[in-house]
Amino acid sequence: MKQVEGAITAPKGFKAAGVRCGIKEKGTDLALIYSERQCSVAGVFTTNAFKAASVVRNMERIKIARGRAIVVNSGNANACTGEQGLKDVDYICRFAGELLNVPIDEVYNASTGIIGVRLPMDKIDVGIMDALAELDENGGEAAAQAIMTTDTRPKMTAYEIEISGAPVRIGAICKGAGMICPNMATMLCFVTTDANINPVTFQKCLVSSVDRSLNCLTVDGDMSTNDSVIAFANGASGCSEILEGAPEHRDFEEALAKVCMEMARAIAMDGEGATKYVEIHVVNAETYADAKAAALKVANSPLVKTAIFGEDPNWGRVLCAVGGSGAKVVPENASLSFGDVKIVERGEPVKMDPELARKPMLEKELHITVDLGLGEHSATAFTCDFSYDYVKINAQYHT
Amino acid sequence: MKQVEGAITAPKGFKAAGVRCGIKEKGTDLALIYSERQCSVAGVFTTNAFKAASVVRNMERIKIARGRAIVVNSGNANACTGEQGLKDVDYICRFAGELLNVPIDEVYNASTGIIGVRLPMDKIDVGIMDALAELDENGGEAAAQAIMTTDTRPKMTAYEIEISGAPVRIGAICKGAGMICPNMATMLCFVTTDANINPVTFQKCLVSSVDRSLNCLTVDGDMSTNDSVIAFANGASGCSEILEGAPEHRDFEEALAKVCMEMARAIAMDGEGATKYVEIHVVNAETYADAKAAALKVANSPLVKTAIFGEDPNWGRVLCAVGGSGAKVVPENASLSFGDVKIVERGEPVKMDPELARKPMLEKELHITVDLGLGEHSATAFTCDFSYDYVKINAQYHT
Repeated sequence: MKQVEGAITAPKGFKAAGVRCGIKEKGTDLALIYSERQCSVAGVFTTNAFKAASVVRNMERIKIARGRAIVVNSGNANACTGEQGLKDVDYICRFAGELLNVPIDEVYNASTGIIGVRLPMDKIDVGIMDALAELDENGGEAAAQAIMTTDTRPKMTAYEIEISGAPVRIGAICKGAGMICPNMATMLCFVTTDANINPVTFQKCLVSSVDRSLNCLTVDGDMSTNDSVIAFANGASGCSEILEGAPEHRDFEEALAKVCMEMARAIAMDGEGATKYVEIHVVNAETYADAKAAALKVANSPLVKTAIFGEDPNWGRVLCAVGGSGAKVVPENASLSFGDVKIVERGEPVKMDPELARKPMLEKELHITVDLGLGEHSATAFTCDFSYDYVKINAQYHT
Repeated sequence: MKQVEGAITAPKGFKAAGVRCGIKEKGTDLALIYSERQCSVAGVFTTNAFKAASVVRNMERIKIARGRAIVVNSGNANACTGEQGLKDVDYICRFAGELLNVPIDEVYNASTGIIGVRLPMDKIDVGIMDALAELDENGGEAAAQAIMTTDTRPKMTAYEIEISGAPVRIGAICKGAGMICPNMATMLCFVTTDANINPVTFQKCLVSSVDRSLNCLTVDGDMSTNDSVIAFANGASGCSEILEGAPEHRDFEEALAKVCMEMARAIAMDGEGATKYVEIHVVNAETYADAKAAALKVANSPLVKTAIFGEDPNWGRVLCAVGGSGAKVVPENASLSFGDVKIVERGEPVKMDPELARKPMLEKELHITVDLGLGEHSATAFTCDFSYDYVKINAQYHT
């Protein structure tokens, strides 16, 4: 597996563009992703009961699981916009579909930004036409730029693997979770690949990859109205079809998981006000569900996150979060490390120089490992610390 | 129902004391609560898997459900202290029991403060003897003082009702939840009453009261190793026994619920770094569990809490938290108000002057009401906002 340039346009047969249509105060704010061939589509969407209009439509569309294009805007989430919001999504997909000569059901739509406000449709009209004119085989980075809200940098990656002798590529772009948008935390991720894979197998691969990466990512624990991962596979690599259970299937899933993992890391590293990137590893849990619940509970704990900001090895807060996660915990079996420093050994604190415990806290990247000592399952949560700036960014913004 | 003075010593037959034994840097740090008669005991304890030694012992003891005394220290939680921690609890209960001439099984123990450090037993020895000497029929407030950690004020209340012609009193003291202690959020609440009630009925009343009050209280969503509510009923009022299902039962439960509710409010108002007291009311939910889950999810959302600190009527964050709570939500049925101002009506934002929406946010006490429009169940969560000081207090403390 080797890393390659080009993000979502690294795989063959994909074009992308990012343009400014004026929804945000500044910067590009409309992205178009396009495949020359019909794609298998996979998707993972927010479980929030308040779903943005685009999510409602994408979830209907994914049942057909065929796609050619994705229109994404930043600056306005088109959420809590009622019937009008759905009509606007339908208009966007029909309009883009007509310009691209693609059926409406093969055009996906995603939005991120303020909620409760109707999309500025006149601007979007112009934006779609401009984006169409700019569609480019090297447009991946421009698209990554255009989906940003308060992200401080575009997020993208691409990898190449070999399947049945053919080079197959997987690329992705994403924008940040965690109150990135002033109104709402939104995570958007778009994945493209030139692999040949049917939608059912593709969906399984995506769910499995997202479950251990983007779904283990948290900045502040809220799932937005718009959170979406949409993946397109167009088969343009010429590789033979990836069949479930075949060795190629495992290779492909591994590469897809790596791409999703990198996107999760990139988002956590760019969390609002973050000064540190943090991974919580829960190992030797009785079940995977236990490991994930415990890791996410620690990653979501304001107590833990403020202690990390303060560079304080406050292991009590970590154990407390684990103990309150609902995961099976036997205190006498549980151990805890900050970086390589063992802090708690089988339920009791290790006697040590406090400076030694503090050392890993001073790094920009912190790994906390909780060993439950009960089984063989593990999970990792990706997060960042909670700083003054987190409160500032989120308190000072006025709707 | 009338409010009376005296807190936990307002009911007949109770004495209390609060003394300094030197566990904390300053202030009183050991409380003793004593009943002249044997009491029915009820208790609600943390569900955290890491339970402090005192909680482990209290949970064993509550099966007998008879008690005479409670020894409480602040400054050290006696948590993550292994076998030694349990031995120390046993020593404390035996020592206090011998001095009071009470069996060890009728002495309860509770602690709050730093974790992972053994209790200073020599100081506690002296503290128990001093407290015994100071036991007083007016000692309720002194006890309330002695259980404080970073609470800014003692928390206590007492009410009187009439049962079968006799005045019956219920008093309580508590200390704050929510990262109050530098190491750990701990909520301790002690309730006394001179009602005549058997332990089984008493336990049911307490569980029901705590479920809608202290268990709906959150400052930062973490449940500590030490959280406990312990209630003693000694029958000294001379009232006839409160039997389940009788009118007196309802009256007693109502008064107990009121006492617990006041304690929850007092703790939320004194949350770390809090600038505002907040109640989240979820009404017309399909089930009580839904109402409670939604209210607590909003109350725990850092996005909502920072917006409240910033006096921003950010209704999108509230709906997002409700939508992610797992409660049944039909967006078209959901409405939202800040104070008396209706912000969202059946899923769509109400058009209004933004200054009108902001007005309730400027008050010291904010009520947010979410009407799910699906049923008849409601719940209230008690919390506070998230300020710069919250991060400061929790980041700057070093273990």
